[in-house]
Formats: sequence, structure tokens, C-alpha cells
Amino acid sequence: MKNVLIIGCGLIGSSILRSIVEKKLIKKIYVYEKSKRNILKIKKLKLPCVVIDKFKDIVPNLDLIIFCTPLGEYEKIILKINRYLEPKTIITDVGSSKEKSSQVIKKKLKKGIFWTSSHPIAGSEISGPEHGTKDLFVNKWCILIKEKNTNKKHLSALKIFWKKIGSRVAIMNSKKHDAVFSMTSHLPHLIAYNLIKTATDFEKIKKYELIKFSAGGLRDFSRIAASNEIMWRDIFFNNQKNISKVIDLFIKNLRLFKKDIQLTNSKSIIKKLIDTKKVRRKIVRLKQDINKPDFGRDI
Amino acid sequence: MKNVLIIGCGLIGSSILRSIVEKKLIKKIYVYEKSKRNILKIKKLKLPCVVIDKFKDIVPNLDLIIFCTPLGEYEKIILKINRYLEPKTIITDVGSSKEKSSQVIKKKLKKGIFWTSSHPIAGSEISGPEHGTKDLFVNKWCILIKEKNTNKKHLSALKIFWKKIGSRVAIMNSKKHDAVFSMTSHLPHLIAYNLIKTATDFEKIKKYELIKFSAGGLRDFSRIAASNEIMWRDIFFNNQKNISKVIDLFIKNLRLFKKDIQLTNSKSIIKKLIDTKKVRRKIVRLKQDINKPDFGRDI
Repeated sequence: MKNVLIIGCGLIGSSILRSIVEKKLIKKIYVYEKSKRNILKIKKLKLPCVVIDKFKDIVPNLDLIIFCTPLGEYEKIILKINRYLEPKTIITDVGSSKEKSSQVIKKKLKKGIFWTSSHPIAGSEISGPEHGTKDLFVNKWCILIKEKNTNKKHLSALKIFWKKIGSRVAIMNSKKHDAVFSMTSHLPHLIAYNLIKTATDFEKIKKYELIKFSAGGLRDFSRIAASNEIMWRDIFFNNQKNISKVIDLFIKNLRLFKKDIQLTNSKSIIKKLIDTKKVRRKIVRLKQDINKPDFGRDI
Repeated sequence: MKNVLIIGCGLIGSSILRSIVEKKLIKKIYVYEKSKRNILKIKKLKLPCVVIDKFKDIVPNLDLIIFCTPLGEYEKIILKINRYLEPKTIITDVGSSKEKSSQVIKKKLKKGIFWTSSHPIAGSEISGPEHGTKDLFVNKWCILIKEKNTNKKHLSALKIFWKKIGSRVAIMNSKKHDAVFSMTSHLPHLIAYNLIKTATDFEKIKKYELIKFSAGGLRDFSRIAASNEIMWRDIFFNNQKNISKVIDLFIKNLRLFKKDIQLTNSKSIIKKLIDTKKVRRKIVRLKQDINKPDFGRDI
């Protein structure tokens, strides 16, 4: 591949850019970025790319386009670039929710053009091009979406692309993707937001100073609740049905746990606590957790 | 102070031991530990203490006794040492819940003996004497409980003790303590347990492999859900009333959030997400989060 366009150059976009440069994968990197602040940062950081503000001359010659914007931006950008798109160009995105965005894409994208969706399971609660790294995708899963109408050539090329920048690739359809990530990512974030909200509500009701005693557990939730709000709003709206279901499942478990506590049901509580410990061990064994500093501890 | 007895020498007990040694605070350190496995570890680690299995000759001469066992053990141990206790001995504990344990203590402790409760806000999801450190309490809050009948001399001495091993001290009554920590510590732990349980339930229902994709958020909850199950069962049972209230407050917020998502209420969601981000900033500003590796990432 010779030419790539990265649309949206925040944490993920700039990390892809740095990974491409590091691995010498693609000669020419174009960036489209609507935030003036981010453009200034990209220039200050001297990221090796050409920032463009018009698509006409660039898009027809591209080998690869990667959407790294919040999900809510896709439609607007598709409408801007549609007329210049060529079928040979591989188009992908890195969005965390797939079913709804694929409907938007199907509806808006010019006929004969293919879109092959990706979801690298990498990120942080910090946003902006200054926080991207060339190693962000190393040993992380990247999900590629395969449906009936997926262009197999583009899928293979993307598989190679993500593997070259260090990812492990898994392939599934968008329905399964959205169910899996409603549970492993969307619900945890939603819970973190709501726990912090509950703590601030409680602080107001009781007139206690709580936050300074947050090291006992609350602190660890605040980290993931610091994530980008536009990105997360779009994920919640896009994957609403799956998320609603896992919220209900979670509330059901909370209720049962509350009952166990109220009845001092030691046997049930101990079983639950031991079972979750086993899951923790599995997570570490699967190399999904690491012995490195967390991002964001020094914001 | 010349003689201290640490009852229960796990993560917290062994960290207190190491802190006392480091600061040369007390000459003679006795340890009572019911787990044979922990006693072997203490000996292998060559922790500078005398492990005792009888109280008769030691207890009357102690300046300080620190209970570092799960809350459910207090009664049994009080009954064992009661007859040897002297009023001059400062007795404290490090339990995470105070109201109910103070009732047990009041009921069981010999008349004329004082108990002055502590709660160092330090710990980890890892237990056992091999994981203790001499710096565990440095710059961490330690709550001291003050009630009408508190022995002020003992309270002052404990304040000095905790400060010498690096803690910042705050004083409150047990009622306030239990309300504050139901929110900042007990609810977060309970949520982490239930989120992991929900994920495993979901895995069974859907027959999907979820855990390997946990890096998107779930992982971070699994860390605090790996904590010691006996300790946490006792905390949940002891602080049941406050915890039930904050569970209800949290479920109410979850429901409202779900409604916001279903109605695609952008304004409300964005406000909530931005507000929680501010709390995160406050937590970092208050030095309740740090730029260091988490415990437990390499279990």
C-alpha cells in the first residue's frame, strides 16, 4: 500500500499513524482532522503526515482509509468523500459499536464501494494526538467484521495490516461483536460513570467530603470514567439495545447480592467472591492485564 | 511504646510490622496468626517478630494491640485475650466497617478496657504477609474513630503512631465512617464482583468467549474483584444497611442512564459524562491516584 488517509487523528488515529511509520508500512500518510487544536498539536509533534482539508485530489488515489472519529461523525464524512471513492480503496474504521454504524454506512456509502470494519481493543481514558504511541496495538486484539457481503480481499489485507502493527486478529459478525463488547467494554464504562455520579450525589445528600477517601476503590473506577464523552455517548446510543440488556442482567445480579447481604447468606456470597477471583486469574493468564503503569495516573 | 502485638499478619498486619521496624517505633513485636501457612511464610521471610500461640504471659505487658484479622474474627479473639487485658494497653483494629464491630466489642470486651478503632485506607487485592510493604501507609489516609466514650489519651497516641508510619489522619465517628466507606469502598468492590459475575453469566447464556476481550474495560474491574473473600464478606455483612442504601441509589442512577440512552438524550448524557470527568481530575489533584504500577497486574 502506498497511500493512507487517517480521518480523525486523536489517540487511536495518531497511534495508527505512529505504528505505520514505525513499521514502514505505507509511504504517504494523509490526515484529515476537524479540530484546529488537534491540527496544531499534530504540527507541533511533527507527526510525519500531510494534513488535508479537501478530499478531491487525494481520495481517488488512496489504498486505505481509516475512520478514527467518533461514530456520530461517519455519516457527515461519507457524504463529503463519497463522490471521490474508488472500489479498490480499502475503507475501515475503529469504532467500538458496529451494527448501527453498518446500517448508516450501507445507506450512505456509494454503491460498489466496500467498507470493512475494524475494532482495535486498545485505548485509554486520555484522548488527543499527543497521547498516541507506536506500541498501542501490540499484543492487543483487533476485531475484524465479516458479513455476507464483505470484500474478502479487503478483509485479508486488513488482517495483514493489523497483524503488522502488532495486533492479534479475531473475526466475527457485527451482531456478535456488539453483544460481546456491550458486556466487556460498554457496560463497564457505563457503570464507572454511574458510580462516580452516585458518589457525587451521595456527597451532596450527606454533605460529607467523600472524594478524598477514594483510594479504597472508587479511585479505580474514576480512571475509566475519565474517557472521551463524545466517543462514549455515540457508543451508548449506537449499541443501545445490547447495552440495555446487560444493564438489566447486572441490576438483577446486584439485587441478588443485596439480598445475600441482607440475609447474611455466607455460602452464596463466598461462592460469588471466589468465582470472580477465578475470572481475574483467567484475565491475567490470557495476558489481558499487565504489570505496567496505567495510562492517566498523572493527569 | 515497647511491646506490640499484631493479631493477624496478612497484607495489612505485615505492612504495619515492616513500618514499625523501618521507623524503629517499637522494640518488641509479637504476632498472633492462626493460619499455619502464613506462619511459615513469616518465618521464611524472616520478619523480625516473635510468633506466639498463647496470650497469658504476653498480653498483660503490651502497650499496643492491633487487630488485623477479618471483622468476623474479633469476637473469638477478644474472648481469648479478655482476662489478660490491662486498661493501659491501647487496643486498635484496622477493619473497614465500624458500627457493628463496635457493638460486638462493647458487648464482649472486659469492663474498663478501651478500644480505639483505626481504618488505614490502604490495601490491595493481594493478601498474605509476603505482599506487605513498609511504605503501604505512606501518604494514605488513616481514619480514627472517636465516640463519646473514646479514651483521648489512647486516641492521641494512635494518631502519633499512624503519622509516624506515614499516614494522614482524619477523625470521625463510626456512623459517619460507615456511610462514607459504603460509598467510596464497599459499593465499588461490590459492583466489581457483580460486574464480573454478570460477564460470566453472559458468557454462559451467549456461549461467547468474552474474557479474552476484557481489555476494553472489564479487566480494570477484575483487579479489585480479586480481593480477599473472607474480609469482604465480613465487610458486606457488617455494613449491610449503608451498603443497601448506596446500592439503591446506584441502581436508580443506572436506570436513569439507561433511559437517557434509550431516548438518545444527548444533552443529559454529555452532562453526566463531563461531570464525572471533573471528579476524576479532583481525585488526581487530591493525590488519591498515582502514576505507579498497580498491585496485582502480574498475579
